[in-house]
Amino acid sequence: MTAVQTLRVDLGDRRYPIWIGNGLLRDVGARLAREGFSVPPVVVTNPTVEKLHGRALLDSLSPVFGPVPIIRIGDGERFKNSGTLSKIYDGLFRARADRRSWVLAFGGGVVGDIAGFAAATFMRGIRYVGIPTTLLAQVDSSIGGKVGINVPQGKNLVGAFHQPACVLADTGVLRSLGRRELAAGLFEVIKCGAIASMPLLRFIERRLGDILACEPSALQHVILRALRIKADVVARDETESHLRMILNFGHTIGHALEAATGYRRFKHGEAVAWGMIAAAAFSNDQALLTQAEEDRFVTLIRRVEKLPSLRGIRFEEVWRALQRDKKFLAGKMQMVLLRALGRPEITAAVDIGSLKRLLKNLLAGGYAWEQD
Amino acid sequence: MTAVQTLRVDLGDRRYPIWIGNGLLRDVGARLAREGFSVPPVVVTNPTVEKLHGRALLDSLSPVFGPVPIIRIGDGERFKNSGTLSKIYDGLFRARADRRSWVLAFGGGVVGDIAGFAAATFMRGIRYVGIPTTLLAQVDSSIGGKVGINVPQGKNLVGAFHQPACVLADTGVLRSLGRRELAAGLFEVIKCGAIASMPLLRFIERRLGDILACEPSALQHVILRALRIKADVVARDETESHLRMILNFGHTIGHALEAATGYRRFKHGEAVAWGMIAAAAFSNDQALLTQAEEDRFVTLIRRVEKLPSLRGIRFEEVWRALQRDKKFLAGKMQMVLLRALGRPEITAAVDIGSLKRLLKNLLAGGYAWEQD
Repeated sequence: MTAVQTLRVDLGDRRYPIWIGNGLLRDVGARLAREGFSVPPVVVTNPTVEKLHGRALLDSLSPVFGPVPIIRIGDGERFKNSGTLSKIYDGLFRARADRRSWVLAFGGGVVGDIAGFAAATFMRGIRYVGIPTTLLAQVDSSIGGKVGINVPQGKNLVGAFHQPACVLADTGVLRSLGRRELAAGLFEVIKCGAIASMPLLRFIERRLGDILACEPSALQHVILRALRIKADVVARDETESHLRMILNFGHTIGHALEAATGYRRFKHGEAVAWGMIAAAAFSNDQALLTQAEEDRFVTLIRRVEKLPSLRGIRFEEVWRALQRDKKFLAGKMQMVLLRALGRPEITAAVDIGSLKRLLKNLLAGGYAWEQD
Repeated sequence: MTAVQTLRVDLGDRRYPIWIGNGLLRDVGARLAREGFSVPPVVVTNPTVEKLHGRALLDSLSPVFGPVPIIRIGDGERFKNSGTLSKIYDGLFRARADRRSWVLAFGGGVVGDIAGFAAATFMRGIRYVGIPTTLLAQVDSSIGGKVGINVPQGKNLVGAFHQPACVLADTGVLRSLGRRELAAGLFEVIKCGAIASMPLLRFIERRLGDILACEPSALQHVILRALRIKADVVARDETESHLRMILNFGHTIGHALEAATGYRRFKHGEAVAWGMIAAAAFSNDQALLTQAEEDRFVTLIRRVEKLPSLRGIRFEEVWRALQRDKKFLAGKMQMVLLRALGRPEITAAVDIGSLKRLLKNLLAGGYAWEQD
């Protein structure tokens, strides 16, 4: 077992640790008891995660906390809705949860987001602990406190900010992920590199094989670096309230691609990868990023995974989704571009005409990226 | 018009003003524009309030903000549920609300609680302004930031803390309230006196007639005093996190009485009045409050209104509801008692046997209070 590393996220009066290590799951009960948790958690998970790792979790929790109630929700983004939220509330009441109870979110991003939102609103807020089981969730949803659900009008449009009490990222559980799922998470790591750290991008270029083979120390390295970048941005954002926007690099167009394909064609990370490709191209188009840097960045993304094609996606659908985006304020479109790899720039009002041209070209296969 | 008085609620980085005055509604548009609001609000109200005061509100808002979208919800506690919440979200989307939009909650406590919760969770939180139109809402829901909805398992069990951007309490609108509704709000004022201010209780004893006749300066006086008490408790509670509990004086048993009668027999304030009578009697029973003080307190409550009877309420129902209460933690029952009028005491674990006896006696009409 590689040594457990700890990142302490420090947000004013809200402080919490993130532990990253291989095999952490076996140790979670004792670790949380040391952290001061005395009553048993209410676990929220889905059947897929439970089948793979439920035994290990309960073997660790039960000796410390006794019987642990489990709320099972459907596996997949389409279950991140108000119906599932009600189901979690019902499960909390059935488990006789009170204001001292805590939720343990055990699963990927969907479980973390909806279980975190349930915790944020149950009796006006109870604690929750995250044990993310995908690379994306370990990197993406451990920091920032964004929790919420999807509504018919769009994704994550109802939610709250609610910081976890602590997060455990076990790199060992990532071995059960499929290649696409691992890649989707790695795109989030690449995003962190793109907005803040050329060394992180170089590490991924060099060690991509090890990372995709789930070599523990390589995984631990990129997870910790990505988390540090996010923690740093979120902490500084407490004063500079727009800085956090750089974390949305690739997300504006990525979300629109997901919406335009009914959330079926792409995994979230894959859509973000396309969004980053588009944002890098647009950064070049706007004379910010050099052609060489754009090429280097796109090459890295393409080495990770052959992305699902953009074929057949209608521009009008993508544009309509963009206009509904939370970043579209008072008719102006904010977007995060790159001045160089590792150096983001928030553009308050992008050149709408150029962006439309670029998107149309991208969707029409006008760039070489999809050809092979 | 009596002079407008301003109470500045100061909670760390969240600061907001409460304005109290007769005729404030006529001035709301200009006042909010001065406060920095530039885009139009989305108003949430119910048909009863809209009929009485909607014209006055819009006449004040429209010249400043232009057309104002209105979301109408059902009038009454039974509409404070997830269905109505969805309806408010839908209305916000239809009004093309974004993260800079703000909600204007125009109505009683139900409107404030649910519109505030919608604002707390729409796009992870937008601003809201409260214009409470009942005495209870002016005193009770302007401070503390408690917002939420009822679920089948109980009242206010899903919610959040979300401070308003500002609150306008127009004493003039209170003239349209019925006697029972005015009394229900006054019980909340009396609660504030009981936990913090003998002078406030004496003022009410002396000026009860003026208050119930909606004499503006008498109303303004008691509203401001009650708000100051609440603001002080809530501000100090930021460090002493259990202090806020004293605001629940009378509420533990009050809530249980409401639940046991299906929320039909009592107005919330009336149930709290019975809860305060019970808590005062129990304080006497536990040798904290003198008989003379208990009598003085109960006499004041009875002068305000003849409360709906307790007849036919089953003890078992009340007790079951008490056990579901958020204050019932790990099998122990917390309760706020009085050491003297104006001097509360938080009891971490009440004597369950004595409390059961007292409640049974109360429900059986064993006290003289219901006899006339």
